[in-house]
Amino acid sequence: MVIGKSVVSASGFAAIRFVLVNPTHPGNIGAAARAIKNMGFTRLYLVTPEKFPHPEATARASGADDVLATAVVTNTLQQALMNCSLIIGTSARLRSLPWPILTLPQAALRITEELVAKPIEIAVVFGQERIGLSNQEMEQCHYLLNIPCNPEFSSLNLAAAVQLVAYQIRLALMDSTNKIQVAQHDEYATADEMALFFEHLRATLIDIEFLDPNSPKRLMSRLRRLFNRARPKKPN
Amino acid sequence: MVIGKSVVSASGFAAIRFVLVNPTHPGNIGAAARAIKNMGFTRLYLVTPEKFPHPEATARASGADDVLATAVVTNTLQQALMNCSLIIGTSARLRSLPWPILTLPQAALRITEELVAKPIEIAVVFGQERIGLSNQEMEQCHYLLNIPCNPEFSSLNLAAAVQLVAYQIRLALMDSTNKIQVAQHDEYATADEMALFFEHLRATLIDIEFLDPNSPKRLMSRLRRLFNRARPKKPN
Repeated sequence: MVIGKSVVSASGFAAIRFVLVNPTHPGNIGAAARAIKNMGFTRLYLVTPEKFPHPEATARASGADDVLATAVVTNTLQQALMNCSLIIGTSARLRSLPWPILTLPQAALRITEELVAKPIEIAVVFGQERIGLSNQEMEQCHYLLNIPCNPEFSSLNLAAAVQLVAYQIRLALMDSTNKIQVAQHDEYATADEMALFFEHLRATLIDIEFLDPNSPKRLMSRLRRLFNRARPKKPN
Repeated sequence: MVIGKSVVSASGFAAIRFVLVNPTHPGNIGAAARAIKNMGFTRLYLVTPEKFPHPEATARASGADDVLATAVVTNTLQQALMNCSLIIGTSARLRSLPWPILTLPQAALRITEELVAKPIEIAVVFGQERIGLSNQEMEQCHYLLNIPCNPEFSSLNLAAAVQLVAYQIRLALMDSTNKIQVAQHDEYATADEMALFFEHLRATLIDIEFLDPNSPKRLMSRLRRLFNRARPKKPN
């Protein structure tokens, strides 16, 4: 099959969800909806938004009402990541974090390459306005994405961050249609499959008395990071 | 003279002014100030803003008060363009206009190339929220810049447009001066350390009767691939 422009583009845009974790300002939700629609995307996920729906969200969406109307509200980040096999968290700070860090252009390229190789579900995750993603939330991500910006004033508005990410992915998707990559047919485990695995791993480690549930320390957190870096594949 | 990193970067960022023509919403002025500061720029010009200064501008600037405080307010676009020898107007619509049109990445590259060749003053001009730039305003520009977006929903928020333009110019400026990536000083486990780990893992898996040494199949081989993809690191 020839992967034509329309096929890659259409499926690419539909494969990507923008996940906002605990957004506090409804205006930001509306502006984010507008931003993703401006760039050709449609899928907004909201994990326990403080106020939604809200007139301010609708006002700032400025015509992207359809994105708000179809936004998926969930109680946990894990629910919002269902079926995703590439999960990228955004981080304003270049902390010395034990996660693989991609710049925004690198992340957009990565997303596009994986999409061209195989249709998968992809999530880009944005933390709460003031505090960003917690360590626990980052543990559910395969990569962290850093938006290049002024190191002395690096805290982007939430909707502005969504706008930049959506723009850069749009550029990469449009560009990819001219350079079809050699397809890699790896199929990765999805977030929900990994959640089952981690549950099972935890139970087993307790069972064999390697993990003490009364003093778990950071064992599971370290194992989560390790396995998410490894991105387990499905058997061929 | 060798144009070093600091020279091009510093002069590049300082050479570019962001000009908002008749902005009607003070919130957008504040958000634009934040956006340009986030990307390392400082110079905001406002042509007959409807309300400025204004508490909503200050609130949305979210710390970019210095950019608002030094913003230059003028009565005409021409005054705002004083000394500029490269003037780029932004246009959401791809009208059949008798101006040379650059995409945003092309415009950023053009700006950078001209700056590297010779220190000049540069303006990027943004029209009023609802109507964009008038023909008369566009006539004062050398190029029109088009931000790639969804043709069916192409009206970007003013501050979002400023954010995207500032980001793309930042990328181009940084790239022109410095293709050296910051080294990440992760220290990974060595092959011999991993070999010890795999030996231990194998012994343990046999011990718990998960691996049958008489019929090992491809288990260890798959685990090796998994852990090598993860590239375990040494504790910091």
